[in-house]
Amino acid sequence: MALPANADQDARNRVSLDRLSALVASDVAQVNTLIVARMQSPVALIPQLAGHIIAAGGKRLRPMLTLACSRLCGYRGDRHIALAAAVEFIHTATLLHDDVVDASGLRRGLATANAVWGNKPSVLVGDFLFSRAFQLMVEDGSLKVLDILSRASAIIAEGEVLQLVTSNDTDTTEAQYLEVINAKTAALFAAASRIGAVLGERKETEEKALEAYGRNLGIAFQLVDDMLDYSARQAELGKTVGDDFRDGKITLPVVLALKAADDDERAFWRRTLEAGDQRDGDLEHAIELMQRHGTFAATLERARLYAETARGALGIFHESPERRALDEAIDFCLERGH
Amino acid sequence: MALPANADQDARNRVSLDRLSALVASDVAQVNTLIVARMQSPVALIPQLAGHIIAAGGKRLRPMLTLACSRLCGYRGDRHIALAAAVEFIHTATLLHDDVVDASGLRRGLATANAVWGNKPSVLVGDFLFSRAFQLMVEDGSLKVLDILSRASAIIAEGEVLQLVTSNDTDTTEAQYLEVINAKTAALFAAASRIGAVLGERKETEEKALEAYGRNLGIAFQLVDDMLDYSARQAELGKTVGDDFRDGKITLPVVLALKAADDDERAFWRRTLEAGDQRDGDLEHAIELMQRHGTFAATLERARLYAETARGALGIFHESPERRALDEAIDFCLERGH
Repeated sequence: MALPANADQDARNRVSLDRLSALVASDVAQVNTLIVARMQSPVALIPQLAGHIIAAGGKRLRPMLTLACSRLCGYRGDRHIALAAAVEFIHTATLLHDDVVDASGLRRGLATANAVWGNKPSVLVGDFLFSRAFQLMVEDGSLKVLDILSRASAIIAEGEVLQLVTSNDTDTTEAQYLEVINAKTAALFAAASRIGAVLGERKETEEKALEAYGRNLGIAFQLVDDMLDYSARQAELGKTVGDDFRDGKITLPVVLALKAADDDERAFWRRTLEAGDQRDGDLEHAIELMQRHGTFAATLERARLYAETARGALGIFHESPERRALDEAIDFCLERGH
Repeated sequence: MALPANADQDARNRVSLDRLSALVASDVAQVNTLIVARMQSPVALIPQLAGHIIAAGGKRLRPMLTLACSRLCGYRGDRHIALAAAVEFIHTATLLHDDVVDASGLRRGLATANAVWGNKPSVLVGDFLFSRAFQLMVEDGSLKVLDILSRASAIIAEGEVLQLVTSNDTDTTEAQYLEVINAKTAALFAAASRIGAVLGERKETEEKALEAYGRNLGIAFQLVDDMLDYSARQAELGKTVGDDFRDGKITLPVVLALKAADDDERAFWRRTLEAGDQRDGDLEHAIELMQRHGTFAATLERARLYAETARGALGIFHESPERRALDEAIDFCLERGH
């Protein structure tokens, strides 16, 4: 019965990312070929495990940002292929380590690598992919790109640690939450976009505009992601609904629900997220509280603000198919939330 | 009652590494200062955890190789400080992830970071230090150094995965074992030494000589380390004796004991290392079997061969205090085994 609405939504989503995908389709094919070539190793478990998570698909959103931003900036060579692959390797390494840290069982609707092979190889193959990312960048030879992406990598790790520290802490503020997602998600979106301007040898203003585009898009993306962790239908999300709740992660929907909570509700959040004492029906109750206090709508509203900032950052670029595609990627990130 | 012998051995060890330590003492002090400065982060857990493992000391053998090899090659600037710190950061990141993978409780006589803070922050702080290592190299600006160390990092990760794959496999050959230690240990020794020649702008022959020195020294070091895991007195080793046995790691002493094993002994190794069924007294019995078949002596003999190759590689350099110190570092690595 929900099917028509679903189909409608799917169509909208597909349209939104389709323009970007179509624009960089042949580049993405080259990136995928390079990814497969460079995840090889005489140690068979490495391509097996890396192939599992990389083949699982994902949207390749981050490398597509590098590809599209390079073209937006008039770059016409092929260095963007290797750098987009490096971006995806960094992202994949992070996902492997994330899934270990969160003890996740599902990602994109498939068993996680740690669920299949255990934590140990997931940690080590993550290290391998991370090293490969740097090898690709070193082969490219731009110290500026290396600077941008090594800095982003350090910030991502900081964000992941900060997320761990704020886990189970119901006193976490909206500012702290924003610091976490800014670091763990938006930093790579920002770096992936910015290097497009570096490849196009554009001036600082344009580098910064693309950095701002990526950063704000990344924040909007993560806000919607954190909302979907409570509100999505599991099949759409491709991951387990309620993962963040079970992990005791303090995401914005929780922060906002806590802000509006009465004493009973506060006690509920403390028991479930701080003490980690979760019972049957708790997730459903959490979702009900969030709906009652309008935290999904409020989260989406914030996402929309960041999305508009991202859109504004594109304003300094001339109208072009690339700009339109990057603009529609913003809508894609938001639409997922509807 | 074992005290006199112990004291004697300690004295010998101290002498062996003392020349190298003395030679680069002021450089090491600068490296330590830089390490502390660059492991800082607004996320307090990062310097706490990193400080724990870095302050625990360790010999700083790998960064000392970079420092001494740079001087051996006539380098007189200060770039070697940051690169030595990068080498130590890569090593530390590897140790953090190793301890998670091995579920180790002790390192250098202290509780491991994962034992104190859990696996999650150890994985993530390892990622942070790894990123910091690359930031230091990028700031240095040598693509050649970046190439050498990013390649080494990928090889280390491959070696760690291979070690995991051969764990619990009593069919592991000596060649496979050598492949593991070549990758997981010797690659960083080799890279740390080689960049000394890069900084000194020496020709390829000298780069390769230092690479060979580091590689063979690293293999000798790991052979002795793997022997000590069975034969050392716990207090000397600063780690738990029998860790490798409990983890089912197939190191050379085991490979050689398996080669010489009769049917009963083979069944013992299969039960303890392959099936992981270990009982009281098994470690002692394993050590007894190794002693009976002379596998400690044979392991040490192989270490000596690699050590002599390392020594030979120094032959193309003029006699100098640096060469003598690097030569004595070889003795240090061997002497630990006596």
